[in-house]
Amino acid sequence: MIAVLPLEGIPEIEEGDDLAALLEEGAARHGGLQARDVLVVAQKAVSKAEGRVVVLEEIEPSDAAREHAGEGDPRHVEVILRETARVVRSRPPLVIAETRHGFVCASAGVDSSNAPGSGTVVLLPADPDASARSLHERLGVAVIVSDSFGRPFRQGTTDVAIGVAGLAPLLDYRGTRDRVGYELKTTQIAVADEIAGAAELVMGKTDGIPAAIVRGLALEGDGTARDLLMPPDRDLFR
Amino acid sequence: MIAVLPLEGIPEIEEGDDLAALLEEGAARHGGLQARDVLVVAQKAVSKAEGRVVVLEEIEPSDAAREHAGEGDPRHVEVILRETARVVRSRPPLVIAETRHGFVCASAGVDSSNAPGSGTVVLLPADPDASARSLHERLGVAVIVSDSFGRPFRQGTTDVAIGVAGLAPLLDYRGTRDRVGYELKTTQIAVADEIAGAAELVMGKTDGIPAAIVRGLALEGDGTARDLLMPPDRDLFR
Repeated sequence: MIAVLPLEGIPEIEEGDDLAALLEEGAARHGGLQARDVLVVAQKAVSKAEGRVVVLEEIEPSDAAREHAGEGDPRHVEVILRETARVVRSRPPLVIAETRHGFVCASAGVDSSNAPGSGTVVLLPADPDASARSLHERLGVAVIVSDSFGRPFRQGTTDVAIGVAGLAPLLDYRGTRDRVGYELKTTQIAVADEIAGAAELVMGKTDGIPAAIVRGLALEGDGTARDLLMPPDRDLFR
Repeated sequence: MIAVLPLEGIPEIEEGDDLAALLEEGAARHGGLQARDVLVVAQKAVSKAEGRVVVLEEIEPSDAAREHAGEGDPRHVEVILRETARVVRSRPPLVIAETRHGFVCASAGVDSSNAPGSGTVVLLPADPDASARSLHERLGVAVIVSDSFGRPFRQGTTDVAIGVAGLAPLLDYRGTRDRVGYELKTTQIAVADEIAGAAELVMGKTDGIPAAIVRGLALEGDGTARDLLMPPDRDLFR
């Protein structure tokens, strides 16, 4: 069995906070972090600790942003465009963007909910894998930085891994055999995304729970969230 | 906290098996099914119990199937095309199809791994929501029928809900406020998909564990997996 344990009682994160220390305190009521735990931390907590917050008043929107914004806030759209490497789809004011990291998501991950004040927006971490790696090195457990992404074809968001350290995000069954001896040729499971989604179930969106422990997995290896990006030559939806 | 409990010791499922009874037996070692449990059952177990298995020897491939198959098995491709309402993308022998149910997935959900014998393939249930509803009525808990789907832009599969009964698959935050008072305008979380993914983490692909209990959630409502389908007018990737 696995257990998914919410880290409660962590205060609202602010720039410069020692996130690793706060997470460790939050884990104390679950007996502290244990060797094979996976610690899932919401992107917004990481971004806030790293100061990835933009004050809209200080943003001068470009013509492109004004044009795209329609009835939305052109300064918000300007921030989105600055985080965007490639616009994948757009239906104003919605932008589906490929971020500079290579993630395809709404608004290039720029979000105004749970931002530290009205008139601010929160960006994705500059390097979520590095953020995860830093927490992993401090805390000694596998770490996933998670964010809520929409998906083509399906309604609603699910949390996925945008930063990974200390576990292999893909579980590779290629070459193994099923119960009846059939060789699994193409099966790779995005376990890091499934773990991020499981953690979301206890974190919620309005409860101020920025992290969860997923305990009881026996995963091996190492890797980064880049392993989860579809290479352009295999991407049928570019 | 939530717990994800594998249902072990369930024999290989065959057509006509009383799946509900087998699941109930499997749940016995976890204290039996409890009122707010969500029972996640792998599609393949449901399909096999319902006899949704095709013997390839009995299939006469069409010209379209032969053409598409390349070096693959044209009979397998023929079965895929029969399950397909619309080809969304194709790169022979790969087909991304919209199934008759409305799901967009590889091979219209037709799969030869863990099939009951070589030379057979397993189809999705004819009506996975009805399959879930039937188990829900027999067992008294929320039921999700799950399958492993690939995703555009991201590598690896995650398990998602293709049949739902006894819970609302989307958790709707629209109109609620976050910690700082910002109204969440568009947030809907596909909790049924996150639950299916969490269950996959204990089911694996080769261990013969066809189901899991997710215990400790406090979800309300009811719905079907159709609620998870993106309506065509909102689908930017058709």
